[in-house]
Amino acid sequence: MKGTIHAALVIIGDEILSGRTQDRNAAYIAGKLNARGIALREIRVVPDVEEAIIEAVGALRARNRYVFTTGGIGPTHDDITTATIAKMFGRAVVRNAEAEAALARHMIGRATLNAARLRMADIPEGAELLENPVSGAPGFRLENVYVLPGVPRIMQVMFDCLVEGLEQGLPILSVTAGGYVREGEIADVLAEIQDRYPETAIGSYPFLEDGRPGTRVVLRGTNARALRDGLSETVALFRTHGEEPDVSGDAV
Amino acid sequence: MKGTIHAALVIIGDEILSGRTQDRNAAYIAGKLNARGIALREIRVVPDVEEAIIEAVGALRARNRYVFTTGGIGPTHDDITTATIAKMFGRAVVRNAEAEAALARHMIGRATLNAARLRMADIPEGAELLENPVSGAPGFRLENVYVLPGVPRIMQVMFDCLVEGLEQGLPILSVTAGGYVREGEIADVLAEIQDRYPETAIGSYPFLEDGRPGTRVVLRGTNARALRDGLSETVALFRTHGEEPDVSGDAV
Repeated sequence: MKGTIHAALVIIGDEILSGRTQDRNAAYIAGKLNARGIALREIRVVPDVEEAIIEAVGALRARNRYVFTTGGIGPTHDDITTATIAKMFGRAVVRNAEAEAALARHMIGRATLNAARLRMADIPEGAELLENPVSGAPGFRLENVYVLPGVPRIMQVMFDCLVEGLEQGLPILSVTAGGYVREGEIADVLAEIQDRYPETAIGSYPFLEDGRPGTRVVLRGTNARALRDGLSETVALFRTHGEEPDVSGDAV
Repeated sequence: MKGTIHAALVIIGDEILSGRTQDRNAAYIAGKLNARGIALREIRVVPDVEEAIIEAVGALRARNRYVFTTGGIGPTHDDITTATIAKMFGRAVVRNAEAEAALARHMIGRATLNAARLRMADIPEGAELLENPVSGAPGFRLENVYVLPGVPRIMQVMFDCLVEGLEQGLPILSVTAGGYVREGEIADVLAEIQDRYPETAIGSYPFLEDGRPGTRVVLRGTNARALRDGLSETVALFRTHGEEPDVSGDAV
């Protein structure tokens, strides 16, 4: 899409790959980035393994304006993200006084700042800290790589803090028209509409609700006029099949 | 892990990257593979873009016994997976009589087999069909790449059909011990337990329930005895902090 900035996400965690935990960070990050005019172009989920993390982050940061990572920055042995990202950038990991102070503030009356917890104040040299208002332990940024925790409740607050500092692209608008017409009935005309609006990404998603098959058509793009025109044609397409579609989204 | 077969998953779909749709296929596939002794080593989510799909599937199929793809095999213009995978393998896409018959059987009394729907019977030459008992439109396998639809309800039934035909590794067992002790309190001893059981992957996941912080420790591996011994030590670790952990999982 014209005027769009690209980003990628690396989810670091055996617990997602084993199916034990359902990731909820990707959808959150994608939504916040969209609102900022930044499109998430790729997501990779990798295990808690150094080479896998370095390969994914390295490949994605070379071709995206921003790369975000989630997971692996806690106090336990399986938290290897900080050391791995430092190694990738050829930086030493050093005790960060500001991070230590933030951790200490959050420990008051709750727990002691023992050796394990202090490891969360070890940050790659020269990295910018990313504030964690929830539990103190900061994330960090090195060049275009933003390192965040995996716990959604904490990650979300931290992402809200940092998103304001990201470059701003043209907002990515999205509208949806959905109704009880099968995808196979509208496919050919929908392809013609897509051809007429090359700037707009038109996606078609079948659904089944209360046993009735239908289709949701999602139009996304940065050009509001093209989006409105494409939406009108899509609504008209549903009507030729005797269905008045539900319409929702931006720029309606 | 010893005796484990590796697999990867490529999720093809703008709707996941935009945050509009929450993927539910990855966790399902991971769970079924685990039970078969196959470990999911990487997941990539890529847009409906030919080069992105070819890059991801190509890289992952070179280093995994199996690659599964979900999404992009429907009847609309944004369904480009079949053509893309065919191109990657240097195969023509041809009308498949068996696929056409399966589609026709499912259309009876519901919809007509029009040109758009017939495209779902176009399959790369020489591919093995993957049965779709839900809606007829098959997936396919080419070498170690299994191409499946994105709709979870359909994908799951198709995956259940095909998983029985996959090579069988040693079952990956998993046990969890969880209790109200903060991660930072058990981190050091937990690292020692991990060192004593290198065959077992020990993950530590903090949680907050009803405002009380706690930790779930997940032990995974193919050696049941090592798993039981590691679990005993983990339970003992919780007890040294005055907490009797909840234990669940296999081989308990």
